[in-house]
Amino acid sequence: MREVTMREAAAMLRKWDDILVLSHRSPDGDTLGCAAALVDALLSIGKRAMFRCADAIPEKFFYLFRELRLDAFTPAHIVTVDVADKALLGSLEPLGEKAELAIDHHFGSHRPFAACRWVEEAAACCMMEAELLEEMGAKITPRIADALYTGLATDTGCFKYANVTPKAHRAAAALIERGARAAQINTALFDTKSRTQIRLESAIFSGMELFFDGKCAVVCLPKALIAETGATESDLDGVSALARQVEGVACGVTIRERGEGEYKISLRTAEPVDAVPIARTFGGGGHKFAAGCTLHGTLEEVKARLLSACGEAVRAL
Amino acid sequence: MREVTMREAAAMLRKWDDILVLSHRSPDGDTLGCAAALVDALLSIGKRAMFRCADAIPEKFFYLFRELRLDAFTPAHIVTVDVADKALLGSLEPLGEKAELAIDHHFGSHRPFAACRWVEEAAACCMMEAELLEEMGAKITPRIADALYTGLATDTGCFKYANVTPKAHRAAAALIERGARAAQINTALFDTKSRTQIRLESAIFSGMELFFDGKCAVVCLPKALIAETGATESDLDGVSALARQVEGVACGVTIRERGEGEYKISLRTAEPVDAVPIARTFGGGGHKFAAGCTLHGTLEEVKARLLSACGEAVRAL
Repeated sequence: MREVTMREAAAMLRKWDDILVLSHRSPDGDTLGCAAALVDALLSIGKRAMFRCADAIPEKFFYLFRELRLDAFTPAHIVTVDVADKALLGSLEPLGEKAELAIDHHFGSHRPFAACRWVEEAAACCMMEAELLEEMGAKITPRIADALYTGLATDTGCFKYANVTPKAHRAAAALIERGARAAQINTALFDTKSRTQIRLESAIFSGMELFFDGKCAVVCLPKALIAETGATESDLDGVSALARQVEGVACGVTIRERGEGEYKISLRTAEPVDAVPIARTFGGGGHKFAAGCTLHGTLEEVKARLLSACGEAVRAL
Repeated sequence: MREVTMREAAAMLRKWDDILVLSHRSPDGDTLGCAAALVDALLSIGKRAMFRCADAIPEKFFYLFRELRLDAFTPAHIVTVDVADKALLGSLEPLGEKAELAIDHHFGSHRPFAACRWVEEAAACCMMEAELLEEMGAKITPRIADALYTGLATDTGCFKYANVTPKAHRAAAALIERGARAAQINTALFDTKSRTQIRLESAIFSGMELFFDGKCAVVCLPKALIAETGATESDLDGVSALARQVEGVACGVTIRERGEGEYKISLRTAEPVDAVPIARTFGGGGHKFAAGCTLHGTLEEVKARLLSACGEAVRAL
């Protein structure tokens, strides 16, 4: 397993044919944007290319594949996009073991699995791909620009997050110049709520509890509520940010019932609170402002243990 | 009243001293970012400068002025920023009549009032000011970059709206390079909800009604609810976008009770529905996707009249 440069990756792709592109499970806009753009570009330079993902493509991303003819064939070469670990391929993990190239932006956390990997630090994997496709000599058509913009907007929270660099803004500028329909994509991705999300948010906001002078907010999602709203995994991921968004809250806790006496906990914090030590107390982990863990017991026990740990973290504020 | 170029505007400001900068009433991030940046830049090149606005500065924008010493003096010259019409100065309209320079990005709708005006088409007035300050020879410090970024992010919905051009993204890139704390500003402006907003959104989502196969959503804000939640004008403006955000909704109507039998209507539409003809039916107006009007009667009458007009607009979809 060796590292390659962007030029080497482009040369490999130019040499190959019959290429299968793999996205990670629970696919988001970046892995799907990368896949759609790469398949499209490969087709445009005369290759056969197809795409697979272990999980279904969320409806809001259907536009990425609508006009893309994906021929089924026996692949000669496998490329993964935005996949930090072969386990993230879900049921397609065995294909990941045969991958010859992994293109990924999880610099520092990428766990090598493909024969070759091109891994860089970038706000979105689609930013890397924009450079790769140019190097490959593929034309950035408006459709490819749409796909690459989708990944860039998804992974930066529409240019809101701390990972947004001047380079990310300049990449967006270039993609809009190539015809990316930024406003339409943003409306679909960031300004549209499903009725399920609305029911869920409504229930969350009305049931949210505040502790420690409003510095800690706790949201509970019992199984009954999840079932009643028909919320999917992706709906539930989206709402774990809500507790932290309340003005004055430095630590937002979302407690989601998974099974009998089992709870999945999402922690979202704001400067200066570090979510990692709180999650580690319970055997979990994550990033400074977003971590998670699993707890067992009754809801009251679980809540009490979390509040004790969060209380220590916010007490000094 | 004459038009001037950016260079002429910069030359005027360089020549003047004792300058008063005016923002529009109900101040937003663009008018305040422009004012803070301009005052800061004028002070940095040795001028006396101060700032006034008819309305209170929302708390979330306090950071723009925190470290800015605004000396009170009798102004010799008045400049308005992001003010499309002197009526938008609110109680400071008499000062607007004495303004010597209006800097504004409402190209096409600016109603001349100052002796000179520099009006261009731009996503945010702060984008124009970034160029102006460079031309004036003022250094874009991190604090000025924060102020200009604030306006750019505010007026583009954090790079989400249709007014975002490649130039807007490149301006953001340059401001981040000059030290703008983009992520912190975005968290405060776009990822923080006051408890009032939460109570309001919760009430709105639970009371929202859908019509015409879910293509039209109607939200009512009775005076009692507004009073109960303690919502300000700015809280209420923010929620008028919610009805349209529901998946499948092409026409979102927010009916807000203002006085006895008087209702302020906000219309928000999605392609291809044009909000302007609906608003005009009732003597109002606005833009294609955001318009408004005022109606009188009982809530039931008002709702019925609006639904009839909206029904015609969405029926063909």
